Amino acid sequence: MSYFRPHLETMKGYVPGEQPHDGEFIKLNTNENPYPPSPLVIESLKQSLNPRYLGLYPPPLCDELREKVSEVYGYPPDWILIGNGSDELLNIVFRAFLGKNDRVVYPFPTYTLYRTLALFQEADYHEIPFNPDYTLPESIFTKSACMKVICNPNSPTGTFLPSSHIEKLLKSSSCPVVVDEAYVDFARENALPLLGQFDQLIILRTLSKSFSLAGMRIGVLFAHPNLVDGFLKLKDSYNVSWFSQKAAWAALQDIQHMKQNAEKIKHTRSVFSEAMLELGYVVLPSEANFVMVKRPGKNLERVYLQLKQRKILVRYFSEWPDSLRISMGTDANMETVIGNLREIEKETGGHV
Amino acid sequence: MSYFRPHLETMKGYVPGEQPHDGEFIKLNTNENPYPPSPLVIESLKQSLNPRYLGLYPPPLCDELREKVSEVYGYPPDWILIGNGSDELLNIVFRAFLGKNDRVVYPFPTYTLYRTLALFQEADYHEIPFNPDYTLPESIFTKSACMKVICNPNSPTGTFLPSSHIEKLLKSSSCPVVVDEAYVDFARENALPLLGQFDQLIILRTLSKSFSLAGMRIGVLFAHPNLVDGFLKLKDSYNVSWFSQKAAWAALQDIQHMKQNAEKIKHTRSVFSEAMLELGYVVLPSEANFVMVKRPGKNLERVYLQLKQRKILVRYFSEWPDSLRISMGTDANMETVIGNLREIEKETGGHV
Repeated sequence: MSYFRPHLETMKGYVPGEQPHDGEFIKLNTNENPYPPSPLVIESLKQSLNPRYLGLYPPPLCDELREKVSEVYGYPPDWILIGNGSDELLNIVFRAFLGKNDRVVYPFPTYTLYRTLALFQEADYHEIPFNPDYTLPESIFTKSACMKVICNPNSPTGTFLPSSHIEKLLKSSSCPVVVDEAYVDFARENALPLLGQFDQLIILRTLSKSFSLAGMRIGVLFAHPNLVDGFLKLKDSYNVSWFSQKAAWAALQDIQHMKQNAEKIKHTRSVFSEAMLELGYVVLPSEANFVMVKRPGKNLERVYLQLKQRKILVRYFSEWPDSLRISMGTDANMETVIGNLREIEKETGGHV
Repeated sequence: MSYFRPHLETMKGYVPGEQPHDGEFIKLNTNENPYPPSPLVIESLKQSLNPRYLGLYPPPLCDELREKVSEVYGYPPDWILIGNGSDELLNIVFRAFLGKNDRVVYPFPTYTLYRTLALFQEADYHEIPFNPDYTLPESIFTKSACMKVICNPNSPTGTFLPSSHIEKLLKSSSCPVVVDEAYVDFARENALPLLGQFDQLIILRTLSKSFSLAGMRIGVLFAHPNLVDGFLKLKDSYNVSWFSQKAAWAALQDIQHMKQNAEKIKHTRSVFSEAMLELGYVVLPSEANFVMVKRPGKNLERVYLQLKQRKILVRYFSEWPDSLRISMGTDANMETVIGNLREIEKETGGHV
């Protein structure tokens, strides 16, 4: 039985991080926020427990939420598109610009979903290695393409490109440039101020990380209204449930809460990075809510498995076996990680 | 500025029905259910007002919900895929089977989203008119295609094809056959019993209509596990929020509630259809939660607009100007519709 289009038959899908939900694990594998969202979110959901928000279709364009995003971020509503997580928005963007053999370019390593989405479209994906210091390689600027994508801060490395680098890329590229800022609330600056100057810039945000709303699936896209209009064609009519719209609205009503949590996480990140250095790991400079740690030339799968046995879940990618990506939990979580890694080191005599 | 793929640049998107949310209208334009969902739904959502369901990613495959669907409908979990509404599932299915110039066949008129989804894929869509009695035309059976789609009960007509017709189509087709059963809980039978016999059959359901959960965005796909596995590649990792999973689980826990509402709506449909016949309309025999009424040769846009002025919203499609599609509200709602239509007739002397 082979009904699928041939290129889909052979390709593999994207594999998300494990999602055990038994509460047994210290879960540091998918960059969730260890702190709860603003109390306004629960309050707003309580108010929304009304058959009206269950039985009626939700606003297709998330009107009130779009207004709120506009108010918070300073671009008019028609520059904004709300998605069922930023994954849906990425999906729309890839389908909008990439057909068979169309070229998409992005630095590598990065979010591997980009490759999966390119494969769906039978696009020609060029993965160009970052410079050793995780700045952009020259060919990202010069290569012609139908689309370029930058994850910033980048996953899985956590490294960050200052806005001046993004601006240089926009100036040297005539194609759409997607800046995936899922983690940007943990970084020093963001690309939103560039939006008015470059009509091919698309910025993606999510409420999953800094706003602690991964469970509600809310992504936000910013772009010139001409682009937003085109993306709308590809969007499912009712892509965001009433409850998710309500939750996101309430979270954005309390930006201060998000910022305080982000500050705590940045502090934890700095303490944890120091401790990992002391343990002998190479620690990439992170501006995200996770840290990539390395033992160049070694395979860290055993460390990942031993941590898992000890009920600590971090992210191991077989594609980058000498590295682990560890999300920032609470300070206590991270002390537990360090303590366990020390024990594992001792037991194995450092031969991880 | 023209960054989009050329075929997207020129095409139009699907336009969903209007969604006024001020509560002023009797809203009979998008086939929502006038009755609230099972009280278990609100109860379950109350129990779920917990930061855990906000901050953590939801189960990618909706494990517990899949188990519940399996229990209710009698197919194992790996025959089941949960979507962000059945629109997302349609989107996945069209992308799975249709590339440029691949042929998709469906009877017409039907849900116009099929055309939009085919256009996205640059597919070759054949819209074959139904027979005058809304049975399937012979060429649907004989035409070779990469996919065939049947909306059953059909929207916007409300007409229904007995399972024997679907079985005949499956026997005569070697390609995937999608049976979109969004409205099937209001019909006499459904295609689920055929599922085990035909490995190319894909059945779509939604909790938006009969379960009164349009606001929560829950679609359900049934197909052979080999097909489900392929569709999974195309699905966004976390496509259904925690809250929507919880709401759907609770609704399925109380099938009796759904069935009682469906019975009420079927009764309303029969009373309303009679009254519309008396008013001189042609009424298509409906097995859905809406009725299509016609004045052959006339344009009913004015009737639609006059009803709207009177705060009654029904669906007018410019593609079928001699028809209106009217969702079934409560009995009182439908009496109001009839009363207003009578007044409109009087005012215009029948010259609608």
